[in-house]
Amino acid sequence: MSSSIGTIFKLSTFGESHGVAIGGVIDGVPSNVQLDLEAIQHELDRRRPGQSSIVTQRKESDQVQFLSGIFEGKTTGTPIGFIIPNKDQKSKDYDHIKDVYRPSHADFTYDKKYGNRDYRGGGRSSARETACRVVAGAIAKQILATHGIDIFAYVDQVGAISMQGEVRREEIDQNVVRAANLDDAKRMEELIQLVRKKGDTVGGSVSCKILNAPFGLGEPVFDKLHAVLGKAMLSINAVKGFEYGSGFASIEMNGSEHNDAFNADGSTKSNFSGGIQGGISNGMPIEMRIAFKPVATIVQEQDSINSEGEKVKVMGKGRHDPCVVPRAVPIVEAMAAITILDFLLRANAVKLTK
Amino acid sequence: MSSSIGTIFKLSTFGESHGVAIGGVIDGVPSNVQLDLEAIQHELDRRRPGQSSIVTQRKESDQVQFLSGIFEGKTTGTPIGFIIPNKDQKSKDYDHIKDVYRPSHADFTYDKKYGNRDYRGGGRSSARETACRVVAGAIAKQILATHGIDIFAYVDQVGAISMQGEVRREEIDQNVVRAANLDDAKRMEELIQLVRKKGDTVGGSVSCKILNAPFGLGEPVFDKLHAVLGKAMLSINAVKGFEYGSGFASIEMNGSEHNDAFNADGSTKSNFSGGIQGGISNGMPIEMRIAFKPVATIVQEQDSINSEGEKVKVMGKGRHDPCVVPRAVPIVEAMAAITILDFLLRANAVKLTK
Amino acid sequence: MSSSIGTIFKLSTFGESHGVAIGGVIDGVPSNVQLDLEAIQHELDRRRPGQSSIVTQRKESDQVQFLSGIFEGKTTGTPIGFIIPNKDQKSKDYDHIKDVYRPSHADFTYDKKYGNRDYRGGGRSSARETACRVVAGAIAKQILATHGIDIFAYVDQVGAISMQGEVRREEIDQNVVRAANLDDAKRMEELIQLVRKKGDTVGGSVSCKILNAPFGLGEPVFDKLHAVLGKAMLSINAVKGFEYGSGFASIEMNGSEHNDAFNADGSTKSNFSGGIQGGISNGMPIEMRIAFKPVATIVQEQDSINSEGEKVKVMGKGRHDPCVVPRAVPIVEAMAAITILDFLLRANAVKLTK
Amino acid sequence: MSSSIGTIFKLSTFGESHGVAIGGVIDGVPSNVQLDLEAIQHELDRRRPGQSSIVTQRKESDQVQFLSGIFEGKTTGTPIGFIIPNKDQKSKDYDHIKDVYRPSHADFTYDKKYGNRDYRGGGRSSARETACRVVAGAIAKQILATHGIDIFAYVDQVGAISMQGEVRREEIDQNVVRAANLDDAKRMEELIQLVRKKGDTVGGSVSCKILNAPFGLGEPVFDKLHAVLGKAMLSINAVKGFEYGSGFASIEMNGSEHNDAFNADGSTKSNFSGGIQGGISNGMPIEMRIAFKPVATIVQEQDSINSEGEKVKVMGKGRHDPCVVPRAVPIVEAMAAITILDFLLRANAVKLTK
Repeated sequence: MSSSIGTIFKLSTFGESHGVAIGGVIDGVPSNVQLDLEAIQHELDRRRPGQSSIVTQRKESDQVQFLSGIFEGKTTGTPIGFIIPNKDQKSKDYDHIKDVYRPSHADFTYDKKYGNRDYRGGGRSSARETACRVVAGAIAKQILATHGIDIFAYVDQVGAISMQGEVRREEIDQNVVRAANLDDAKRMEELIQLVRKKGDTVGGSVSCKILNAPFGLGEPVFDKLHAVLGKAMLSINAVKGFEYGSGFASIEMNGSEHNDAFNADGSTKSNFSGGIQGGISNGMPIEMRIAFKPVATIVQEQDSINSEGEKVKVMGKGRHDPCVVPRAVPIVEAMAAITILDFLLRANAVKLTK
Repeated sequence: MSSSIGTIFKLSTFGESHGVAIGGVIDGVPSNVQLDLEAIQHELDRRRPGQSSIVTQRKESDQVQFLSGIFEGKTTGTPIGFIIPNKDQKSKDYDHIKDVYRPSHADFTYDKKYGNRDYRGGGRSSARETACRVVAGAIAKQILATHGIDIFAYVDQVGAISMQGEVRREEIDQNVVRAANLDDAKRMEELIQLVRKKGDTVGGSVSCKILNAPFGLGEPVFDKLHAVLGKAMLSINAVKGFEYGSGFASIEMNGSEHNDAFNADGSTKSNFSGGIQGGISNGMPIEMRIAFKPVATIVQEQDSINSEGEKVKVMGKGRHDPCVVPRAVPIVEAMAAITILDFLLRANAVKLTK
Repeated sequence: MSSSIGTIFKLSTFGESHGVAIGGVIDGVPSNVQLDLEAIQHELDRRRPGQSSIVTQRKESDQVQFLSGIFEGKTTGTPIGFIIPNKDQKSKDYDHIKDVYRPSHADFTYDKKYGNRDYRGGGRSSARETACRVVAGAIAKQILATHGIDIFAYVDQVGAISMQGEVRREEIDQNVVRAANLDDAKRMEELIQLVRKKGDTVGGSVSCKILNAPFGLGEPVFDKLHAVLGKAMLSINAVKGFEYGSGFASIEMNGSEHNDAFNADGSTKSNFSGGIQGGISNGMPIEMRIAFKPVATIVQEQDSINSEGEKVKVMGKGRHDPCVVPRAVPIVEAMAAITILDFLLRANAVKLTK
Repeated sequence: MSSSIGTIFKLSTFGESHGVAIGGVIDGVPSNVQLDLEAIQHELDRRRPGQSSIVTQRKESDQVQFLSGIFEGKTTGTPIGFIIPNKDQKSKDYDHIKDVYRPSHADFTYDKKYGNRDYRGGGRSSARETACRVVAGAIAKQILATHGIDIFAYVDQVGAISMQGEVRREEIDQNVVRAANLDDAKRMEELIQLVRKKGDTVGGSVSCKILNAPFGLGEPVFDKLHAVLGKAMLSINAVKGFEYGSGFASIEMNGSEHNDAFNADGSTKSNFSGGIQGGISNGMPIEMRIAFKPVATIVQEQDSINSEGEKVKVMGKGRHDPCVVPRAVPIVEAMAAITILDFLLRANAVKLTK
C-alpha cells in the first residue's frame, strides 16, 4: 500500500535501516534489455555514506545482490528482486534515543501511527530506504538511454549560497557537493564544512533536467507529468518543496512574459513551461527543482520529550550528514528515471498498432 | 488510468468543456453519512465563472446532478455518479484557434499525444474539469467534518502583492480575491483589475490549512502525506509549485533553527514541519502553499504556429480569468479534502480490532 | 474500490436499478478509433429485457448516451463517460418486499454490509448494472476487431438439456435462447417455457470463445489470463462457476491424454489447455465455460424473514427472467472483450521499441 | 504489474525456480500482531517437495528468511520482506529440454511472450513461486485467527475417485493425500501410486472452507467476494476451474430448490449460496472447490517441437508430482487467507467511526 510506486514499471521496497537487509521488487520491466550491473553499483556508490568528508561517515557498503529477473545479463521481463544487506549497524549508537522522540524526526509520528517503534536508527523512516530507489532508477536510466533519454541533476543551492556559474556537466561528479561546476562547489563546500564543525546542518536544493524526452508523456488530469514527478520527489526524505519550469517565480509574472512562444518546429523560444504543458511533455527539456530541509540530527543539545511525555535532553551523535543534497542528487535522478520510464510505458500501452 | 485519484475514497472524472456534460464517479464512500446537498452546490458556486468582476465572465451554471449512491439524503456506500451539464458553450468563440496552437496552452501537447484535438475550449485540458473535483471534495469535507477535521484555503499572494495582515477566516469569502483578510484583498484586487484592463494576466499563490487532523495519516515511503497532497495540488491546472511547512525557505535554514521542539503533550513549539514528519501527520496544523502561473490566455497579439507549422498570430477573446487564484481556492480545498479522507480510510483499514 | 475493472483499459460503473440513471467511465481508450455507435446500441439490445417471451417483460429501453471521449465519431483518448437513464421503474412492484429479505438475493447481505438498503429492485446488486459492461465491452470488441480478434458466446446448457449439435454461429442470434444452433435452441426453449409456467426458474451455462488472440496475453503469476477472465466472469450476477479448456473434466484425466501435442507451427493437436498455458495465451482459441444458477426470484410462496427477524412469506411478481443465460450471452462477451483488450494494452506497454 | 495481489494486504513476489532465491514483499500488514514464525515454516513444510512418496522427490528445504517488518516477534506495520533461497537446483536435469517446448507447459508461451526463456525448470512459471504465497497466507491466517476466522482445505477427488466419507478435520494432515478422512485417503493414494508407476499423472480437486467469516466481506460489482477468490485460486499453477456453493451443479437446478431459506437469525437452512450472496459474505461457511489438471510432466515419450520448429521427442525425468493436489492444499488455504484478510481490511476502511 505505502511501499510501491509506478503503474507499469513498478517498484516495491521493504526494509529497515537496522534489520537484516533492505530490498525491493521491480515489476513491469521490458524483457531482453542488456543491463550494465556495474553501472547500477556505481549509482549506489554515488549515494553511499562515507564517500567524502562532507557526508555522514557511516560505512555502509551498499552492495546490491540481484535475486531474480536477470538471466545471462539480460532482463527476462519477470520481476527483478534484489537485496542490499545491512552492515555496520551500530545499533548501540541509538541506545540513548530509545525512548526519546528526536525533534523533527519521524520518531513521534511512527510511534503514534504504528504503536511501536524500531528505535535503531529510524527504522523504515531512515533514508537508507532510498538506496532501493537508486537501484530501480539505475535500471530505468539504462532502459531510457536506449531511447536517447538523458537525466541528470546537480546541487544549485546550499543555505544562502546559490549557484552563479553555468552547468558544466562533467564537473558535477568531480566535486563532493555535486554542484553544477567546480567554482560553485567550492563556495558551497566551505559552507557545509562550517556548518558541520558547529554540529549543525543546513538545507539545500537540487535541480534536475530530463533531456530528449519525447512529447506525449503524462496524462491529462490527475496524473499530469509534473504532478507524478512532484510526488516522486516529495517522497524523498527531507524534501519540503517541488517546482517545475518557472515554479514559484511564476507567481510574480504576467502572462505576456510567461507564455512560451513557439518556433516553427514546435519547440519554444523560452521554457517557463519546464517542458510540460497541460501535464504533458512538449519535447523541450523537462526542468524541476527540489527543496531539502536541513537534516534534523544535529550535534547540539536540544529539548525534547520521551515516550512517557517527560522532558529530556537529546543530542545527535557523530555519523550524520551536515547537508543532505550531495547524496540526494543520485536519488533525485533515480526518481526522475523511474517516473519517466513508467510514463513511457503508459504512453506505449495505448499506441495500439496492428 | 489518467482520470482517477485516491486508493479507497476514489474519484474518476470524465468530460470535455464543450461536450454534453462533465461528471464523475466517487467510489469508496462510507455509508449512512447524511449529506447536505446545498453545501455541495455552494462549493461549486465558489468555483463558478462569472461570480465577480475579476474572474471570467463565462456563464456556466455548474448545477450538479446526482445519479446514484445517495438514497433518502444519505450515502448508500455504493458509487456516487454525478454529472454537470455543459451550457453556454460558445464553441464559435474558438473558431479562430481551430488550427492554432496557443502558446503555453495544452493545444500542442494534446494534439501530439492523441493525434486529435477537441479545439472547442481546451477539451479535456480545460479547467472546467475541476468542477468535478469540487463535488467530490465537498462530500469529503462533510465526512471529515464529522471527525472535526477542518480545511480552508486563501490567496496569500497575487503578483508581487503578498499578504501582510493576518488570516481572518470569516473575511475570506467576503472578498472576491479570497484573500486572507479584507485589507490584503483590496490591494490584490487592484492589481488584478490593472492587469485585466491591459488584457494581461498575473500569477498568484494559495495557502491551505488542515486543522484537527489526527496523527498517523500518511504512509512511510512513497505515499508520504505531503507527497500525495503535493501530487493532488500539482494536478490542478496552472499549478507550478508546491511546498509544505517551511518549504523552499528551509533551504537557507540551519537544523538548529528549523527543528520543531516538542511540548510535553507532543505538540511542537514551532511548525516548520507543516504538521508532517517522516510523511506522517503529527497532530499539528497541516500547512501548504501552492504556486499558480499567470493564465496563458491573454487579450494581446502573440506569435504562434498552426498545426501545419506555419507562423500565425493569435489573440485571446474576452472571457478568461485575469488571475486564477480566487477561483482556485475551493479547488485546493477540495483536493485537500479528497486526499485527507483517503488517508483517513487507509489508516482505518489496518486498525484491525475484533 | 469495488466498482472498477481493468488496469489500463478501465471501466468504472455506478448506478442503482431504480435511481436516475446507471452509467460509467471508460478510461485508457486508444485514441482515433472510429466507433460504430449503432453497433454498441445493438449489443445493449441483445441484453435488454423484453426482447422475447422467455426473458423478463420489464420494458427498459436501455438507450446509452455518450457524454465525453468521442469527437466526430472517433475516440479522443480521454475518458468516455456515458449514462443509461432508468425508465419504467415500477418501484411500487417492490413495496411488498420493502422490509423482507428475499431468499438467495443480496437483500440481506447489502443491508448488513451497508446498514441501509435500496429496496427498489435490488439497488446496486441489480443485474441492470451489467448494461454498463455491455457498453464498454462493445467498444472493446470494436477495437479488438481492428486486430482481427473475434469473440462470441452461446448457451450450451439449460437445466439438464445440454447442447448436442454443433456451433452454427449465424444461428446463435436467430434463436431466443442464444443456443449454439436452432435444434438445441428448440429443446432448451421448451424447458424454459415449462419452468416459466410453473413460476420457477432454472440454471444454465454459457460457452465463450476468443479467436485469433495473439500469443503472449496474460501475466505469469497472479494475473494469469484465465484467472483474470475468471474473475471477470464470476463478477457477473448469478455466476457460480468458471472453467477453461478441459476445466473440471481434467480432474479425471491422465497427463498422457491431457497434454496438448505440438504441431510444427506451434499450434496444438488438441486444446485441453483452452488456449492458455502457464497463464499466457498460446495462439489457439481461448475457450471457457460459465455456470449460472437459477434466478432467485420465483413466483412461488417462500418462507423468509424481514429486517426485524420475523418470519414472513414472500412471492416474486411477474417481471423476472425464468432463465438468465439468454441475456447473459452478450454480458459474457463484453467481459471477455474488456479483459482481452486490457491484456493486449498491457502486453503492448512493455514492448518498448525505439 | 503481474506479480502483485491484494488491494490493502498486498503480496508482491519475485523469483525463478533456479535463480538465487524466490521471495516477496507483504505490504498493508496491521501492526503489533504477534507472529508465530514456526507456524509459518510449518505451512511451508506442508507444501514442500519430498514430504511423502506420492509427491516429487526434489529436496527443496524451503526455509523462509524474514528481512524486515517484524521486530521483537511482532509485525511493525511496515512491509515484510522475505526470501526463500533456492537449493538443490539440479539445473542439468533440464539440459535435455533446453531448446524443447514441453507439451502443456509454459515453455512455448513464455518464450513467445518474453523472447527469452529460463529453461532451468520453468523459471518464473515454476510452481515453486507458490511457496511465497504460503508465507503470506500463513501470516494472514494468524491475523484472521485473532478474529476467529478459520480456513481449511482438503482433497475431495483424485482422478475418478471422489470422497465418500465425511470430513474429519484432524485426519487431513494425517494422510499424505490430504484427503478429508483416512478411508478416502487410502483409495486416492492407491490411484496416485498406480499412476506414478506408469510414469503418468492424474488430476484432482480441492475443497476449501472458510468458517466464522463475518458478513459484509466482498464488494458489490466487480470485486465480488467469490470473483476475487476465484481469481486467487485460478492463479495457482495447474488450476482449470473454480466453483463456489452449488457451483456447476446449479445449472441443473430450479430456483425453488436452489434458494436458501432463512432461519430467524439470518442463517440459512441450506447453503447453495456457498456463504456468498450478491458477492458479499452472509455469515454462513464460505465453500468453494478448485479443479487441478494432471501435471504436464510425464515419464513417457511425447512428440514435441523445439524452438526451431523441428519435431523432437521429449520425456520428463524423475522428480515430478504424479498428482498435484496433496501439495496444493496449503496453497489453496493460503490464497483464501490472503483474500479474506484483504476484504476484511477493505471492509474496515470505510467503517468510519469517530
